Amino acid sequence: MNNLIHLTARLAEIGTLRYTPAGIPVLDIVLKHESWQEENGQQCLVKFEMPARILGKHAEEWQYRQDMMVEAEGFLAQRSQRFPQPILRIQNIKEYKG
Amino acid sequence: MNNLIHLTARLAEIGTLRYTPAGIPVLDIVLKHESWQEENGQQCLVKFEMPARILGKHAEEWQYRQDMMVEAEGFLAQRSQRFPQPILRIQNIKEYKG
Repeated sequence: MNNLIHLTARLAEIGTLRYTPAGIPVLDIVLKHESWQEENGQQCLVKFEMPARILGKHAEEWQYRQDMMVEAEGFLAQRSQRFPQPILRIQNIKEYKG
Repeated sequence: MNNLIHLTARLAEIGTLRYTPAGIPVLDIVLKHESWQEENGQQCLVKFEMPARILGKHAEEWQYRQDMMVEAEGFLAQRSQRFPQPILRIQNIKEYKG
């Protein structure tokens, strides 16, 4: 069952680092993406904001990198039981070098 | 600038086929996904609904395939100027054969 996302985006918002009850660091962020995409033979300008989450040791590393352009890979998942709209759960993130 | 999604999901809702002012068929759908994913070394159950759109000739083909399991590929984009929350714009879709 595929659930794979690759997204180049700007780290537009970075929340405050928090910890799960088990002590795992969690960083909630917002990624801002803008690109041209092809759909049905036409180019279209795509612009959106995607809520995302980094869990584990990477959460601490990324808390002070606001506005950095990044390559993020991960999967979509519900934000919480109450909010089924998906967010991006990041498995790999690195600086985008163009 | 990457913006790539691969998603295996069920065609949970299929809207009424409509046409753009230029006469291009558009089908708004809702994909329901459920899978186990690994995050920070832990398995987690992922369940969400993703609004999606099929544009062009495929829109007509897919309007009567409710509840089919599909493999969808595409990119994320704003739903409209007023609603920046992303939807999946489908470039390729086929039946999921397991």
